[in-house]
Amino acid sequence: MQRLESAPQDFDRVLSSMCTEPHPAARQAAERFLATNPGDPETYQTVADLERDAVELLGTVTGLPEPAGYVTSGGTEANIQAVRIARNRADTDDPNVVVPTHAHFSFWKAADLLGVELRTAPARDHRADTDAMAELIDADTVLVVGVAGSTEYGYVDPIPGLAELAHDADALFHVDAAWGGFYLPFSDHRWHFGHADVDTMTIDPHKVGQAAVPAGGLLARSPELLDELAIDTPYLESTKQVTLTGTRSGAGVASAVAAMEALWPEGYREQYRRSMDNARWLADELAERGYDVVEPELPLVAADVSQPLVEKLRDRGWRVARTGADELRVVCMPHVTRSMLRSFVADLDWY
Amino acid sequence: MQRLESAPQDFDRVLSSMCTEPHPAARQAAERFLATNPGDPETYQTVADLERDAVELLGTVTGLPEPAGYVTSGGTEANIQAVRIARNRADTDDPNVVVPTHAHFSFWKAADLLGVELRTAPARDHRADTDAMAELIDADTVLVVGVAGSTEYGYVDPIPGLAELAHDADALFHVDAAWGGFYLPFSDHRWHFGHADVDTMTIDPHKVGQAAVPAGGLLARSPELLDELAIDTPYLESTKQVTLTGTRSGAGVASAVAAMEALWPEGYREQYRRSMDNARWLADELAERGYDVVEPELPLVAADVSQPLVEKLRDRGWRVARTGADELRVVCMPHVTRSMLRSFVADLDWY
Repeated sequence: MQRLESAPQDFDRVLSSMCTEPHPAARQAAERFLATNPGDPETYQTVADLERDAVELLGTVTGLPEPAGYVTSGGTEANIQAVRIARNRADTDDPNVVVPTHAHFSFWKAADLLGVELRTAPARDHRADTDAMAELIDADTVLVVGVAGSTEYGYVDPIPGLAELAHDADALFHVDAAWGGFYLPFSDHRWHFGHADVDTMTIDPHKVGQAAVPAGGLLARSPELLDELAIDTPYLESTKQVTLTGTRSGAGVASAVAAMEALWPEGYREQYRRSMDNARWLADELAERGYDVVEPELPLVAADVSQPLVEKLRDRGWRVARTGADELRVVCMPHVTRSMLRSFVADLDWY
Repeated sequence: MQRLESAPQDFDRVLSSMCTEPHPAARQAAERFLATNPGDPETYQTVADLERDAVELLGTVTGLPEPAGYVTSGGTEANIQAVRIARNRADTDDPNVVVPTHAHFSFWKAADLLGVELRTAPARDHRADTDAMAELIDADTVLVVGVAGSTEYGYVDPIPGLAELAHDADALFHVDAAWGGFYLPFSDHRWHFGHADVDTMTIDPHKVGQAAVPAGGLLARSPELLDELAIDTPYLESTKQVTLTGTRSGAGVASAVAAMEALWPEGYREQYRRSMDNARWLADELAERGYDVVEPELPLVAADVSQPLVEKLRDRGWRVARTGADELRVVCMPHVTRSMLRSFVADLDWY
């Protein structure tokens, strides 16, 4: 009981998370719709309608006028389902999926689950290298993946070039914009359905979209792609289910709609500007101190701060993560303010 | 916006759902912990501790003194993961899973995902038939499944007998008590880790446990079984992840703990009595009217009310479901009161 009464979470030293505090409208909607289940749409009709609204709004964000899709438990489910669509649609006994080396670890989870071979191409300057990707693609390739806002560096792969590669090989093309999707519309990147021949996409309202967890997003260019996922549901009033999970969170769905209605587009644009400025400011401060900094492309900063120093910052309560190359990694989420970063840099200077 | 402001859900005519209104303590905990992510335990430490409490409490409910496990997105994830553990642990290229025909449709989802063959044995009197199950088991059987509280009839399979079958074949044994798990402790059934050599179990706090969605449960007799699910997590502060999803709902975890702390065991016992009495009352009322009723074993009533009549009841706002055999199916969840059922029967009489 005691633990339930303790403070659930302070965000004032969290620099490691790709989640954030939900927008007040998103929190309110999550609380209102807590006892609903979009997994049973005939029983819970209001939230089922809201899910259609959520998918429409996600289509608006990603340049897809008639989107198919649903609100997932998160980016991992959406990535797994994209691999599953491609595997089920293809006609091969030995399917493989080609990803850049910086793809999210959920693709390894998907490979284990789905029994597909994962082929990883080395990156160049933290972005997918089209030539290296092309070398791995063959007749058994069912899916090519591009990342729009990588987990480790926030970098954007050359999406139009990768889409071409995929379709030349008759494979599907998936974009993982789980984290980046609500920052990218305000950047110059070419990343979405309107920019390239993208088949499926992951974009998570519960990250930069400022919805409450769990609200991930899977989008597909056409409903036929989702049909690859359909399982019969004998006892529900509805008869087919394409989602990975069964019972699902109405709180997540409602809060996704509430966040997008409150923030799209001007609120998100303003957030992008503020977070990008913060990232550039932190990158400059770290560079001035002699650290090797990966120039931020989206609001995420990586720098070669030594592990012993990172441990000391953790002891002072900072939640910071690291890249695979053991760099310090700071994710500039909406809750990360300039004053938090000033205080972080002051602690860094103190050691 | 309008839709967000409409009433999220009335439960006063919902007889079809296996979810219910969360207990007030569960709702409060869900709201407090809305912005936490147990999928990132080093960043969100309080909720990670709460998840350990949840697993301990689930162990208490299911006769497992040192439980391994975690809070899943729901029963589907838990069932998928049980199949995945068995598949990954076994040494066969052609794995199969033996389930009774009334197993939940999530096992079909698991079979598609995981590339295992699903073998379904006919039931006898709505329960798994041990002989029929035995006939399907062979050297490639990696998992045998028993259901403790079936989705369609609420019946309980002969768990100890099925456990023996499984272990004689060196397969794992999984019990799906997703719905029944919080009613069964107060019945005479033999269904849990203390009654038989069960390896893994699904038991969902967000159903009869009265937690908020999403709070399912996967339990395992030993942590080594969960290791079969481990995937490296390069960028998190923790380094391994066994869950199917990545980011997860802290609201679900906290509300599971709150519900179990508030209700175990006396509150759940009282709920079992009330719901079982309601089910028996409804079964009697329907039988008196000449319907063929499946005698309820747990608080779930099925009866051969004709489909046109069921459609009329739906038109009057009743949310009712059907079995695979097209029977009317009424799930006596905690929100289903005697007066709701009286009003339902009155509507039935009206037609």
